[in-house]
Amino acid sequence: MKKLLSLAMLLAMTLFSAVYAQTGRIPAKGLAVLSGDGQFKPYSFSRHAVGDNDIQIEILYASICHSDVHHVRQDWTKETFPMVPGHEIAGRVVKVGKSVTKFKVGDYAGVGCLVNSCGHCEYCKAGLEQYCKQAVFTYHSKDQFHDHETTQGGYSNNITLTENFAIKIPANADLKRVAPLLCAGITTYSPIHYVGIKKGVKVGVAGFGGLGHMAVQYAVKLGAEVTVFDITEDKRADALRLGAARYVNVTDTTQLKGLDDSLNFILSTIPAAYDPGMYLKMLKIDGQLAIVGLPPTAKMPVIPIDKLVWQGNRKVFGSQIGGIKETQEMLDYSVANHIYPEVEIIKADGPTVTNAYQNVLDGKVKFRYVIDMKTLK
Amino acid sequence: MKKLLSLAMLLAMTLFSAVYAQTGRIPAKGLAVLSGDGQFKPYSFSRHAVGDNDIQIEILYASICHSDVHHVRQDWTKETFPMVPGHEIAGRVVKVGKSVTKFKVGDYAGVGCLVNSCGHCEYCKAGLEQYCKQAVFTYHSKDQFHDHETTQGGYSNNITLTENFAIKIPANADLKRVAPLLCAGITTYSPIHYVGIKKGVKVGVAGFGGLGHMAVQYAVKLGAEVTVFDITEDKRADALRLGAARYVNVTDTTQLKGLDDSLNFILSTIPAAYDPGMYLKMLKIDGQLAIVGLPPTAKMPVIPIDKLVWQGNRKVFGSQIGGIKETQEMLDYSVANHIYPEVEIIKADGPTVTNAYQNVLDGKVKFRYVIDMKTLK
Repeated sequence: MKKLLSLAMLLAMTLFSAVYAQTGRIPAKGLAVLSGDGQFKPYSFSRHAVGDNDIQIEILYASICHSDVHHVRQDWTKETFPMVPGHEIAGRVVKVGKSVTKFKVGDYAGVGCLVNSCGHCEYCKAGLEQYCKQAVFTYHSKDQFHDHETTQGGYSNNITLTENFAIKIPANADLKRVAPLLCAGITTYSPIHYVGIKKGVKVGVAGFGGLGHMAVQYAVKLGAEVTVFDITEDKRADALRLGAARYVNVTDTTQLKGLDDSLNFILSTIPAAYDPGMYLKMLKIDGQLAIVGLPPTAKMPVIPIDKLVWQGNRKVFGSQIGGIKETQEMLDYSVANHIYPEVEIIKADGPTVTNAYQNVLDGKVKFRYVIDMKTLK
Repeated sequence: MKKLLSLAMLLAMTLFSAVYAQTGRIPAKGLAVLSGDGQFKPYSFSRHAVGDNDIQIEILYASICHSDVHHVRQDWTKETFPMVPGHEIAGRVVKVGKSVTKFKVGDYAGVGCLVNSCGHCEYCKAGLEQYCKQAVFTYHSKDQFHDHETTQGGYSNNITLTENFAIKIPANADLKRVAPLLCAGITTYSPIHYVGIKKGVKVGVAGFGGLGHMAVQYAVKLGAEVTVFDITEDKRADALRLGAARYVNVTDTTQLKGLDDSLNFILSTIPAAYDPGMYLKMLKIDGQLAIVGLPPTAKMPVIPIDKLVWQGNRKVFGSQIGGIKETQEMLDYSVANHIYPEVEIIKADGPTVTNAYQNVLDGKVKFRYVIDMKTLK
């Protein structure tokens, strides 16, 4: 009986391999949430073949973004499972298609939230692929360029994608701290550069987590005077250490005094319910509030339009990550200026990642969990 | 008995006049809502004396702004009655204080929403008096510079204010059409110039009433391609006649097709409940939605912040009228370019104004009622 079973398994594996050999599909293993229960489990799946313009990356590090938690918990929309999250990926190129020019085997490469887009709409042409109506996200997305298969993310041992959406990681980068740059980095770098922060500008960073602590570093580097807002005393020392001029614990209203009409720019990275009107009131004339943090739909903050009128000539806008060209620029800039996330490296096993998610929800992580994908069994 | 009554009245009037003579206060009569019933009645009151820097204006025309209707109906906040509304005022200078330099008796002068401000805060210094925390509004405001008396507006035969807040009306202006410029004009002119509308820019004007029909004229004059949005077919011909390239009746969803991501700038003048998200979706990347219309508080539209993020890099801001310097610039520009509101002149009697308010609420006015204050009895 045992022998028969072994024979059957061998046969299955041979068939499996034969199919892969025929289609060029690449076996992959990772950590997935198999249903809506939020528990990470080992998961085997496959990636599409390496096309002429594709590269295959051996994933070395993948980090946990707060939006991964939202996806797994279905905070924004119903999701498809099994789901392998992860859109902050750093690794090494192990295979290149015959038309690839940007990478060679052995190079370091990163992947962020996007793996493809239409390439010809006005957004793609402008380097704003994140707004392309046909953009393919790294996971939880239907990949129309590959038989509409559901994409799977970076909590896995490899990924294959067009070289156009892979980011070159400089050889001198501190690789274990690079992954979070691909989302937390670009998501904060982009609006900060979009509004043109300069020396002396008074900047607020609301929410001092994975995104917020990157925003502080970028704004400080540009010479801004940064005020950090969060709901705890626990992060005060870290904020000041990273260069913030002031830390405001908003749960203590006395700390909010004198802040109305005082800031030129506020970046809100808050992933939970809050009152945007409070931050609107802190803006000077011509000030801007950029929103990158997205709480769960059921707790989505709203801005009543009268608050915009009474606090007139202050602008609010949302911002989604950044385009590929800008992501490359951000990565080069970050490495050159030694701007990195503060990370805690964890092992790639189900209970560890499941537990890390709870810590993210509880605001206990300082500041980004990075999963060492080489520890995946 | 009759004789006694006459004697008593004569005595009262003499005393009244004596007090005026002593304080310099100026008797005024107008149309007021005496309580929250929305009915206009004749009303006698007094204005503060003409100070050294003040002018007294004989009011010739005062027009009905949608926000007057909101105030009388207490749509935004509880109000104080009797209330004489009116912050779109055109008239003639009949008296000048000894330090006045900008006006002489006989000049035409206008008054908008503001009659004073602190004069030394950063907003006042920047010519943005409307955002001064101590700004005094033309009516429904406590005038801290005059014993905290409640200000009364333009539906009256005269008004007294500092020359700094009076706007010079060029002698060649079409006076009966000037009053609405002081609010509807500047409220639309200011954001249109703030965002720098240029030839060929694709502009949307949402709400085609008193404000909207001014916005169309300013945007068309700057060479913009203007799309007008309203909820009726009745205004289509007027919009096209004033230069709009397209008119969209939003109650017919087929007319909305193809509009997503198509406009650079949208000015919302809508004074009733609506979905700002619909207009956000129509903005191109880097587009801006300016909000100047304010529905009643109970129906105040809200913008959920996820809509800003999904439609990223589009900005929303509110705008309140404009400062005094810009209001003068708008008036000179409007007169020089023959940009005026379309008006219906009505008599200054209670039932007529009460009825006009109902027509404004019902969207039946094309486009501004102007009260001929000389007909006040």
